[in-house]
Amino acid sequence: MSLLDDLAAVGRAPGGGYARHVFDRADTELREWFREQAGRRGLDVETDRNGNLWAWWGEPGPDALVTGSHLDSVPGGGAFDGPLGVVSALEAVSRLPARPARPFAVVVFAEEEGGRFGVPCLGSRLLTGALDPDRARALRDPDGVTLAEAAARAGVDPARLGRDDEALGRIGTFVELHVEQGRALDVPVGVGSTVLEHGRWRFSFTGQGNHAGTTILADRRDPMLPAAEVVLAARRLASTVDGRATVGRLVPRPGGTNVIASTVDLWLDARGRSREVVAELTDAARAAAAAEGCTVTVTEESYGGTVTFDPALCDRLTGLLGAPELPTGAGHDAAILAAHTATAMLYVRNPTGISHAPEEFAEDADVEAGVVALTRVLEDLST
Amino acid sequence: MSLLDDLAAVGRAPGGGYARHVFDRADTELREWFREQAGRRGLDVETDRNGNLWAWWGEPGPDALVTGSHLDSVPGGGAFDGPLGVVSALEAVSRLPARPARPFAVVVFAEEEGGRFGVPCLGSRLLTGALDPDRARALRDPDGVTLAEAAARAGVDPARLGRDDEALGRIGTFVELHVEQGRALDVPVGVGSTVLEHGRWRFSFTGQGNHAGTTILADRRDPMLPAAEVVLAARRLASTVDGRATVGRLVPRPGGTNVIASTVDLWLDARGRSREVVAELTDAARAAAAAEGCTVTVTEESYGGTVTFDPALCDRLTGLLGAPELPTGAGHDAAILAAHTATAMLYVRNPTGISHAPEEFAEDADVEAGVVALTRVLEDLST
Repeated sequence: MSLLDDLAAVGRAPGGGYARHVFDRADTELREWFREQAGRRGLDVETDRNGNLWAWWGEPGPDALVTGSHLDSVPGGGAFDGPLGVVSALEAVSRLPARPARPFAVVVFAEEEGGRFGVPCLGSRLLTGALDPDRARALRDPDGVTLAEAAARAGVDPARLGRDDEALGRIGTFVELHVEQGRALDVPVGVGSTVLEHGRWRFSFTGQGNHAGTTILADRRDPMLPAAEVVLAARRLASTVDGRATVGRLVPRPGGTNVIASTVDLWLDARGRSREVVAELTDAARAAAAAEGCTVTVTEESYGGTVTFDPALCDRLTGLLGAPELPTGAGHDAAILAAHTATAMLYVRNPTGISHAPEEFAEDADVEAGVVALTRVLEDLST
Repeated sequence: MSLLDDLAAVGRAPGGGYARHVFDRADTELREWFREQAGRRGLDVETDRNGNLWAWWGEPGPDALVTGSHLDSVPGGGAFDGPLGVVSALEAVSRLPARPARPFAVVVFAEEEGGRFGVPCLGSRLLTGALDPDRARALRDPDGVTLAEAAARAGVDPARLGRDDEALGRIGTFVELHVEQGRALDVPVGVGSTVLEHGRWRFSFTGQGNHAGTTILADRRDPMLPAAEVVLAARRLASTVDGRATVGRLVPRPGGTNVIASTVDLWLDARGRSREVVAELTDAARAAAAAEGCTVTVTEESYGGTVTFDPALCDRLTGLLGAPELPTGAGHDAAILAAHTATAMLYVRNPTGISHAPEEFAEDADVEAGVVALTRVLEDLST
């Protein structure tokens, strides 16, 4: 789709894929692009108190029909996760035969991936009050910049972050289109049924930094060892509950080859009975740390229980489209909004199921099928 | 010592300790400081073809008596490792009753720790031809800058890197004073006997980047798992040969919490029968990688066999000082030079044995004892 092609060069990561994180240069460029595209379609764009963008077709709410997704990526992410939902929404606006009778908006949520500040669905969690604004303001990116500082530089007043009843209260129905992220969809378009429970935890190990050559093994307090035990135990424990556990980010400090680390931080992404897994893993981490003369602290950075999308709305869309229902293991802003308003998701087929990686892909024909489906859904819901 | 105090503020690392790496801002500042201190003592400073500094007291070589060490640090390193040998050398120059009858120089070797480009004793290895200059020019720092680029920016012609027979041929005797890095010295000063064999290897694992939520465990090719196995196996295998093995640097890419890594690089520092350990570890890494559908390549980045310092010189210094002989597990530029010229080391007691960490320490009285000992040694060797 030509709108997706517009974005192909924005925020390319040096190691492949994209690096687009809230309020960074790429994100700012993508927001400008969205404003321009919305303007061309006669929509009026406003930024809410939490840095989410709303493009209104006519007067804002109440009981608005809203569609959209996000423009940020994971580090090294693909081209479709997020942007596909935004460009499909803009394309649907162009194809709708008339302005919906209901208030209507296209939304872009901020930092859905949590790639910069660690908390996924940052914009929708703040909007709905699922994330405490004091905690949010103090979140730091890997360079130590707080969300409060980054927001202020981007012109978003950090003092006003937090639950926004005015913006939230306008939404009557939210529909998010998204690329499918597994291999479970064997037709072009599916309708979301559930989102698996999931969370993120930081395991921080502390030992004693020392010389890699002179420190005999018996004298070591090397936090890398219990960290490695946790990587392996996470996989083992997740398998016992048919869940998922991933350590994709692990940072030893100071990070010298000839230096025993003084600390290791690792982040666990766990889904499916995740708190059970983390409870057992915390015990394993403490035992492994103690065996090496180290300590560990475990911090829950985010959590979301299983979400079932509005069953009546789901039935309506599967009937309208003749499309299957689909559960997912991926988190989405729609899953955050589902506790507050009627919410549905459409998925577009991903032939390999690879996502959060440069190989993420959808065929042109399936992308087109997604736009057609979204347009039909919006038309159906527009009165 | 007041000369050490001069350096206390230069190159402080955000996480504690020092970050001083070849040709960076801190290193440049330290080099300027050295030039100024050498100039105050009437020494003439020149930079050799490999970026090492030589401060000559009178005419250069041949059969010169040379002392010195390095000014760079490991990431997050202490205040003594390197600088103590340089400031003690400058202080000894001030205390010597007269200019030695032999040619005499204080040397500062470049990048002893390999903290920026990965190869330890970079300056002395290039000087002696132990490191191929083509390989050296292509070395990259973590930001992707090559040594050739960094050298050129610092005014060192990268085309002229490599074995420097003129500079090497001038050295008749080299004495390096260094803080002791273990707990084996229970008097203020010791004399070096041997340096343990050691090397560095990079293990590069490749899997398939993917989504942490949607990718079921059975479909994963997660390189973090075999990397964790290698961390644990390294410790296990080193213990069987009474050696040392450390993974202090490990980098998953792209490094997102909700992203299965596509690659993990880890660096192994191994000492004491290290090639035996690495051979077994390579087998273990291949098996663990294959079990997860990943691949691994293992690259030797540096290696040095066991070094015995000149026995006659060692005996002379232990007799002169009434000091004990001391083996070490730490690498030093002196160990590189030992294959080419008469070489000795003096160690200054470290009360806790901690090194390569901010807690690295030596008592003032022991530092003074080191300067006294070095001055006596230089006077003794000066004719």
